[in-house]
Amino acid sequence: MRILLDVMGGDRPPRELVEGGIAAGRRLGLDLVFSGDPTLIRRALADARERESDRLAILPATQIIEMNEPPVQAVRAKRDSSLANGLLALKRGEVDAFVSPGNTGAVVAGAILLVGRILGIPRPAIATPLPTLDGGEILLLDAGANVDSSAKHLLHFARMGATYEHEVRGASEPAVGLLSNGSEPVKGNRVNRRAFELLDRSALRFVGNVEAHTLLTEHPADVVVCDGFVGNVLLKAIEGGILATSSLLKKGISSGGLRTKAGGLLLMPAFALLRERLAYERHGGAPLLGVKGVVIIAHGRSDAEAIGGAVEAAQRAAQVHLTDRLAEGIQGWQIDGN
Amino acid sequence: MRILLDVMGGDRPPRELVEGGIAAGRRLGLDLVFSGDPTLIRRALADARERESDRLAILPATQIIEMNEPPVQAVRAKRDSSLANGLLALKRGEVDAFVSPGNTGAVVAGAILLVGRILGIPRPAIATPLPTLDGGEILLLDAGANVDSSAKHLLHFARMGATYEHEVRGASEPAVGLLSNGSEPVKGNRVNRRAFELLDRSALRFVGNVEAHTLLTEHPADVVVCDGFVGNVLLKAIEGGILATSSLLKKGISSGGLRTKAGGLLLMPAFALLRERLAYERHGGAPLLGVKGVVIIAHGRSDAEAIGGAVEAAQRAAQVHLTDRLAEGIQGWQIDGN
Repeated sequence: MRILLDVMGGDRPPRELVEGGIAAGRRLGLDLVFSGDPTLIRRALADARERESDRLAILPATQIIEMNEPPVQAVRAKRDSSLANGLLALKRGEVDAFVSPGNTGAVVAGAILLVGRILGIPRPAIATPLPTLDGGEILLLDAGANVDSSAKHLLHFARMGATYEHEVRGASEPAVGLLSNGSEPVKGNRVNRRAFELLDRSALRFVGNVEAHTLLTEHPADVVVCDGFVGNVLLKAIEGGILATSSLLKKGISSGGLRTKAGGLLLMPAFALLRERLAYERHGGAPLLGVKGVVIIAHGRSDAEAIGGAVEAAQRAAQVHLTDRLAEGIQGWQIDGN
Repeated sequence: MRILLDVMGGDRPPRELVEGGIAAGRRLGLDLVFSGDPTLIRRALADARERESDRLAILPATQIIEMNEPPVQAVRAKRDSSLANGLLALKRGEVDAFVSPGNTGAVVAGAILLVGRILGIPRPAIATPLPTLDGGEILLLDAGANVDSSAKHLLHFARMGATYEHEVRGASEPAVGLLSNGSEPVKGNRVNRRAFELLDRSALRFVGNVEAHTLLTEHPADVVVCDGFVGNVLLKAIEGGILATSSLLKKGISSGGLRTKAGGLLLMPAFALLRERLAYERHGGAPLLGVKGVVIIAHGRSDAEAIGGAVEAAQRAAQVHLTDRLAEGIQGWQIDGN
């Protein structure tokens, strides 16, 4: 199996991403293709005492899509970017999956424009795994590929998410929740109330509305669906809550007396557990579901270890032929009448 | 000044709320009117070595609107509820402000139906003060009075929020941010992008789009506006992040060795600071802006101390004649062309 890794558009230097790719390739028995500046990639390979080979190939690209560029324009203008070249290799079937820690909007736009949507899925969605306190995960979608989603789009998100959980994570009948502003069925905005009806009528195991404050601590569903604007706000708000709590505790510790400072030192292992468990950007990477190929969006801040997790997520999705499973799913859903 | 306190619909027993009202009345030099079951209120007064008087009056009510009742139906059906009777007293001008820790939807529906909207404000909004790490506050609105808000509604929220910050909190020219899924002006859904234009053209000090993860730590604006569905998800997600972090740390502490446990004990003062600073439900209570009277929604979990904070918020708003200031504001805004 060959996984393409776009090493240019992330926040970390290409060297670190190549290093993470090499380590993941060894650990998981994978071939890697690195797209980007060949000189930089060759140097990174040399630093890791490796050289260009079938197992560690280079797909040259002269351009980089930066984090702040407008997605659609950037994809169209930069024809020789590491992102576009990588997606085209996926489209041509030269690799089994594509991983990028670059501009999320550009990965989404590029995947739709260059790889194409699965027939019957008008809106591909980003499915972000959100670690829960019980050691599990919630798959949240859409985490930001779309805004202004319709009720039908939310139903598609639920079906894609449930297929992913079933095929990739082995959940026999994943529980699907609808993110809302209250648990009662009457809660929600216009789109949500309509989506509630569609989900309730569907063949999915729908557990009803779920609320944001219960996600991490109560793990109320395996798959949680919402519009991408709302999903983006949700993830950033959770991150903000975690950030504020940690930083306030650190402040409390450093401004406290000697005893408090000593307490802070003794607590370092607990803080490490916290970072490890709640840092959702370290948990693999988020599949873009609904395009004709396995596309994994890694966090921009991904370091070598995090990018390894994203490569592993790509391998798991490619192994079960996720794209085929989603495409077949559509057939069943259409019979189902929605 | 007389403040009405609905002591029946909260999560805590009426006795605790009466006690909190009495303490706030003494501290702030206020007269209180308690609406609810007269027997319970008299007993609570006796427990606090007080008795019914002009300073501590009782407005009898035989019904209670419970937390889960559908708001509009409950307000219509329960004509003799503590909530409805209290709002009618506000409408008749018998009290200067109304405070309730009850069913939020019912307070909103009741205030609109029984007290009425300020002319020119189609959608009153809940303005929740969100404590920031620098010791300040962000006023977030709408925190959940409305769903499916239009761009124009968001503009109204911004104006009401800025008026509140100016009149009640003394901010000379409050900075207004628009909650979005990215900081660039092109970010957002359809309603948000249109609201961005309206806010940018307005006379407000508009600082552009703000993102959820920066609110508590960077305090990017004094007033942050969003749709009520989104605002509700935002607040609950922040709460969830805080909850998860604290609970994971506690778990790390209790499952750790003796040294970690000792560290946890030494850190108790830092944890106390954390609870104090980030617990937004303890920070006063949220004004419902846009109705013809001062209405403060306290958190359902409010105890005696928290309800005292809500009473104080009511006093501050009534002292500056907030309702008149908002109504006057509308005139200026209409000239402004929006």
